[in-house]
Amino acid sequence: MSKRFSLLALAIITILTSSQAQEKRGRIRDFGIQIGILPTGQHNAITDVAGVSVGHKTLIQGSDIRTGVTAIIPHQGNIFQEKVPAAVFVGNGFGKMMGISQIEELGNIETPILLTSTLNAPKIADGLIDYMLNLRGNEKVRSVNSVVGETNDGGLNDIRGRHVQAKDVQEALASAQSGPVQEGNIGAGTGTECLGYKGGIGTASRKLPESRGGYTVGVLVQTNFGGVLEINGAPVGRELHNFYMQEPKEAHKVDGSCMIVIATDAPLSARNLERLAKRSYIAFGNVGSFSSNGSGDYSIAFSTHQSVRIPHSSEQIERNAPEVGNDYMSPLFMAVWEATEEAILNSMFMAEDMKGINGRTVKAIPIQETVKILKKYNSLHQDKLPRAVKQ
Amino acid sequence: MSKRFSLLALAIITILTSSQAQEKRGRIRDFGIQIGILPTGQHNAITDVAGVSVGHKTLIQGSDIRTGVTAIIPHQGNIFQEKVPAAVFVGNGFGKMMGISQIEELGNIETPILLTSTLNAPKIADGLIDYMLNLRGNEKVRSVNSVVGETNDGGLNDIRGRHVQAKDVQEALASAQSGPVQEGNIGAGTGTECLGYKGGIGTASRKLPESRGGYTVGVLVQTNFGGVLEINGAPVGRELHNFYMQEPKEAHKVDGSCMIVIATDAPLSARNLERLAKRSYIAFGNVGSFSSNGSGDYSIAFSTHQSVRIPHSSEQIERNAPEVGNDYMSPLFMAVWEATEEAILNSMFMAEDMKGINGRTVKAIPIQETVKILKKYNSLHQDKLPRAVKQ
Amino acid sequence: MSKRFSLLALAIITILTSSQAQEKRGRIRDFGIQIGILPTGQHNAITDVAGVSVGHKTLIQGSDIRTGVTAIIPHQGNIFQEKVPAAVFVGNGFGKMMGISQIEELGNIETPILLTSTLNAPKIADGLIDYMLNLRGNEKVRSVNSVVGETNDGGLNDIRGRHVQAKDVQEALASAQSGPVQEGNIGAGTGTECLGYKGGIGTASRKLPESRGGYTVGVLVQTNFGGVLEINGAPVGRELHNFYMQEPKEAHKVDGSCMIVIATDAPLSARNLERLAKRSYIAFGNVGSFSSNGSGDYSIAFSTHQSVRIPHSSEQIERNAPEVGNDYMSPLFMAVWEATEEAILNSMFMAEDMKGINGRTVKAIPIQETVKILKKYNSLHQDKLPRAVKQ
Amino acid sequence: MSKRFSLLALAIITILTSSQAQEKRGRIRDFGIQIGILPTGQHNAITDVAGVSVGHKTLIQGSDIRTGVTAIIPHQGNIFQEKVPAAVFVGNGFGKMMGISQIEELGNIETPILLTSTLNAPKIADGLIDYMLNLRGNEKVRSVNSVVGETNDGGLNDIRGRHVQAKDVQEALASAQSGPVQEGNIGAGTGTECLGYKGGIGTASRKLPESRGGYTVGVLVQTNFGGVLEINGAPVGRELHNFYMQEPKEAHKVDGSCMIVIATDAPLSARNLERLAKRSYIAFGNVGSFSSNGSGDYSIAFSTHQSVRIPHSSEQIERNAPEVGNDYMSPLFMAVWEATEEAILNSMFMAEDMKGINGRTVKAIPIQETVKILKKYNSLHQDKLPRAVKQ
Repeated sequence: MSKRFSLLALAIITILTSSQAQEKRGRIRDFGIQIGILPTGQHNAITDVAGVSVGHKTLIQGSDIRTGVTAIIPHQGNIFQEKVPAAVFVGNGFGKMMGISQIEELGNIETPILLTSTLNAPKIADGLIDYMLNLRGNEKVRSVNSVVGETNDGGLNDIRGRHVQAKDVQEALASAQSGPVQEGNIGAGTGTECLGYKGGIGTASRKLPESRGGYTVGVLVQTNFGGVLEINGAPVGRELHNFYMQEPKEAHKVDGSCMIVIATDAPLSARNLERLAKRSYIAFGNVGSFSSNGSGDYSIAFSTHQSVRIPHSSEQIERNAPEVGNDYMSPLFMAVWEATEEAILNSMFMAEDMKGINGRTVKAIPIQETVKILKKYNSLHQDKLPRAVKQ
Repeated sequence: MSKRFSLLALAIITILTSSQAQEKRGRIRDFGIQIGILPTGQHNAITDVAGVSVGHKTLIQGSDIRTGVTAIIPHQGNIFQEKVPAAVFVGNGFGKMMGISQIEELGNIETPILLTSTLNAPKIADGLIDYMLNLRGNEKVRSVNSVVGETNDGGLNDIRGRHVQAKDVQEALASAQSGPVQEGNIGAGTGTECLGYKGGIGTASRKLPESRGGYTVGVLVQTNFGGVLEINGAPVGRELHNFYMQEPKEAHKVDGSCMIVIATDAPLSARNLERLAKRSYIAFGNVGSFSSNGSGDYSIAFSTHQSVRIPHSSEQIERNAPEVGNDYMSPLFMAVWEATEEAILNSMFMAEDMKGINGRTVKAIPIQETVKILKKYNSLHQDKLPRAVKQ
Repeated sequence: MSKRFSLLALAIITILTSSQAQEKRGRIRDFGIQIGILPTGQHNAITDVAGVSVGHKTLIQGSDIRTGVTAIIPHQGNIFQEKVPAAVFVGNGFGKMMGISQIEELGNIETPILLTSTLNAPKIADGLIDYMLNLRGNEKVRSVNSVVGETNDGGLNDIRGRHVQAKDVQEALASAQSGPVQEGNIGAGTGTECLGYKGGIGTASRKLPESRGGYTVGVLVQTNFGGVLEINGAPVGRELHNFYMQEPKEAHKVDGSCMIVIATDAPLSARNLERLAKRSYIAFGNVGSFSSNGSGDYSIAFSTHQSVRIPHSSEQIERNAPEVGNDYMSPLFMAVWEATEEAILNSMFMAEDMKGINGRTVKAIPIQETVKILKKYNSLHQDKLPRAVKQ
Repeated sequence: MSKRFSLLALAIITILTSSQAQEKRGRIRDFGIQIGILPTGQHNAITDVAGVSVGHKTLIQGSDIRTGVTAIIPHQGNIFQEKVPAAVFVGNGFGKMMGISQIEELGNIETPILLTSTLNAPKIADGLIDYMLNLRGNEKVRSVNSVVGETNDGGLNDIRGRHVQAKDVQEALASAQSGPVQEGNIGAGTGTECLGYKGGIGTASRKLPESRGGYTVGVLVQTNFGGVLEINGAPVGRELHNFYMQEPKEAHKVDGSCMIVIATDAPLSARNLERLAKRSYIAFGNVGSFSSNGSGDYSIAFSTHQSVRIPHSSEQIERNAPEVGNDYMSPLFMAVWEATEEAILNSMFMAEDMKGINGRTVKAIPIQETVKILKKYNSLHQDKLPRAVKQ
């Protein structure tokens, strides 16, 4: 299915599933909401990290297919031949993310990162192998560590059908581009739910002052987890009467997950990338989640810095590379914390109502009402950027 | 030094170090501030978990000794002979917590948990061994896994002097009691700092509805970490112009730590205790911290349930024990998340100004001003408990 | 391809690829070689643990397909609905084993364990999902944690072709049976190499004396790793002039892996299952391997004890279950250590010469010559079982 | 106590405790025993890694003090100001090793490594803090991550007495020297037992061919663990009727531990140092041990390479450093595996009979008898070095 047709399908399905006119969607900053104190990158997206591109393939078909795949490509070369340092932090391992042990052992990734629907992960991984084996220069490759994350979109999607096919992987990868990133009900976020509302794909970025290295940190999330939504501390979920443990008998139901992909151009070792990834977990608290039992929450971080890339084959026993010292990591930690929080909120603000399997509809967060609540709590946070960090 | 004299010393030093009348201190609920939606236990303290007692020994001497030790005793029997299931989550391992590997390997603790000052940890561990070897019934014990946590109180205390002695350990342990827990500038919290203000010891608890098991979760913290204080989402630190990265050149300074001790009467395996401990890390986000590089952040959780205790010696190859299923863990996760946030805030609200080494003074958080800010942000949160969780 | 035809194909290919008459193969005990001091179970196989069954699907086609899949089924019920405690130890994470994080988080497995060829792992995982979704009682299942291990059979097999199909998974699972287990060039061991010779599937078991619990520990391995073969300490590899670092320039080549599957009827917690799994890693030393960089070495252990099974859905918050105490684990550790060593050797003794892709042939270990070496080193070890452990 | 007096005391106690003339002791190569195929460094000791020095303080007093402390100093500068990359692998965490979490988090060590007796570890750590605070240049240091390992010498030593004092730490550190290392009943090995015989301190090293980097790997062990001794595969323990599970009722007794310290001049990241450390665990299998429940087995590895040292304070956000690539790690893995095995055997061969607390005597391994057994099994292994690795 061509991308144009895909957008058409999205438009049609939106019309079909919307019982009323939906309000205008946008990113949180479009509504004056600001998270944290650090400035964003140009597009406030993971693609602000130079070289990173993102592609999606969205499947919205009939009444029950609401799923897709999202691809994050760390750099535009052959990533198998030029691996990048990477690490994973497992916030809650109740998920099926693939590729973890090799990342932890070797400290790198050798494929793009794909996100999809839980039961579809193996098919997508197989499609990723197709892609890798067919890249020019990989003719002799006999081992590939596919990195695939997933969350469970079974609330809206016919998840047992595993509708994403290997060819969809190729399309998602082929469509990857730098610059602005599509968010909301797109790709792997098509059928996900977050904090009581429609979730999806979201992204954000932070740029450190030059005095702290001038590095960029970008985050992309696939949101599908529970909790009681807070925005800048305003108890939005409670004000909207949408919160956890509201229905006691459902406390033990499987309730989603969150995939967090983190890119940075800072030259980081795998060890410090793991520390960076860990800080994204703290952002759960800021949006009102505590990483419930059923939530498979994974953060994967990689560095795109040219000098830390790892050649697949090298005649050199030793390699020389730069590395940010431990003592200079805190600003990067702050950046990922802020960007994760904002990416989660963007995923919700950009998502639209979605009707899916069994006629079930998940509503998008009501933006105007939410903004009113934020005003009530004086929590839009505009005009509060301290001068000190503007340097 | 007797406890009475210790209190006297505290009183004197308070007079000496206060350049102005300090405002009345109290716990956050005394000022109408409420965290989360779950009800607290009777004392809103770790001691709400039956059998747990807490003791302190505070050292405030001369112009530069501002330190102490805090003891958390899991049950009132011989804990070496009747170990309790336990687990540790290391949020940020830049600290000197002792005893971790054995806890992880065997899934239990066999001593009380002591908290103190960084360089004092070994002396305190040795004092804990004294205590353990001298307990009746331990005459033949030849191996003890001392569990000691620490944070760095060197900003106010002559930390290199390692002034806490083995005998102080005995006093802290002997003074342990159930019921209300002393907070603020006490024991291991005497010289600590948190989020730009005076930190210390804080505690809180949560009690689950009977339909979720009726369990109690109690948390005690030793707060000594950085960040930009948020309370219920209100940007208190920014409003008070007290925030991280304000002074760019200090970004890489060692900046404290947080020890989090978690008790529950739920019968949990070591595996689920580790998951429980991990959720306390998310609470950092809620108070405005991202666990900076220099912050050694450790969470240790244990279960006091009578039937999960582990005899030191047993003729039985197999033991039978109850265990909460994975699917029923979420309410416990929520409880520890809320209680950690509240314990941190209690540690700050109960702390008072402290003048210490090199004439440096660390101010306590200005409560009235803070309450005003919370009102401005409509963030006191009283009267917002949803009915659904009152069941 | 029917099983009968598969065996026929094996016979034909054996004739085609053998340039000379192969010597009779057998398990090590058939040649008087004995490992360790503990007695074996009835079949000296993983299936000695009651309820465990093993199935294979072997693909030997044309000149370059030499691969397959091996299935280990923990019990004969619906394992998704009745999960078993499990744990993974990652000796060397340079591999693609799937399912690890959920096993570590939840402490259980909910599918059979499949072994296959590296690049084929995702397809096999997808086939396993088919199987699980189609099991009676799983009609509403929307999340499955497929456990798939792999080693790289690319030295003999057209690995890029990913020839094992989802239907092969069904055949392997359908063919699973208790009792004696087929070893050598079978299933996932069809194209593997070990310690310079043809590797494959091997198995062994140990039964503890009643005084130590009377438990059985069974091990099944897929051997594909390097080193300098030792048997009972006799330097077989060196005597046969077949050893590591012989060809200096190949030191950094990818060199295989080992998958180790461990079953026991002892009621073990996930924590002690992980400790059990870890001991299998020590057995590498005993066969002359040090787990080289390219070797993805994983051990997965599970308990089949009826009372530790975990229902997928339960109305009970707490479950009661027996558990072997830490102090009684050592005999189990010894059992898994011995059984792993023996299973590895069985995989080599039962394997036959194999000619595969690019006309390359990997020879089976020459048994008669090896036995001669063992005799030279007085290392057959028969008649040395100490009486003390016969009790 | 002066070192001279200490040696005198050792001499006297040896006379007092020896009821018969002991056979001449020596390192295994003195008796023609050779482990592995790689060449050793000059002294076949951890000190073959340039800059590493080792010191001991031995306490043999009266009838029941048999203990001490051993210090390994990574380089001769101020190690706090110039930290070295380091990592820990926990084989079995049933021990009290101190300093692990900071090593794992920051990837370095900032103190010498001390080994001692279990209950004495905190006192020794406190002595190490004394040492570190008093080093020139450390006047402002307020945080020290003491690295202390221990094993339980309570079978021969009055362990509850904690007789090693802070001053003994200073003496051990002050006595540290490069070149040959004292082994056997010395320092932290004074009262330890191994594989049924007297254990102690042992060391060994390996030097890689220049084609593999020419690196040196040195290992020092404190041996105190159980099992059935094997040497080059010869079943020495069984031949000498000294083996595990001989006395069924003692299966669950606490049974020692092993501390393994690994130095290398290869420029390794913390990640690859952890992988290196892990391979030492495999050597347990080669000496006949399976790391029983009561054995606290820890391996700590560090790199002394000048260019990977980490300054305590740096104005540079980024540092540049060389690093051995993953693909070139295998020879280092092989080196640590061989050296660990040999160091363990050296600790036993160099140890002498020791009579200690409660009049108990632990015999040294009977060397001549052992050599006879090795000959019977054709397992001395001299003259078997393959030419290929001599390059």
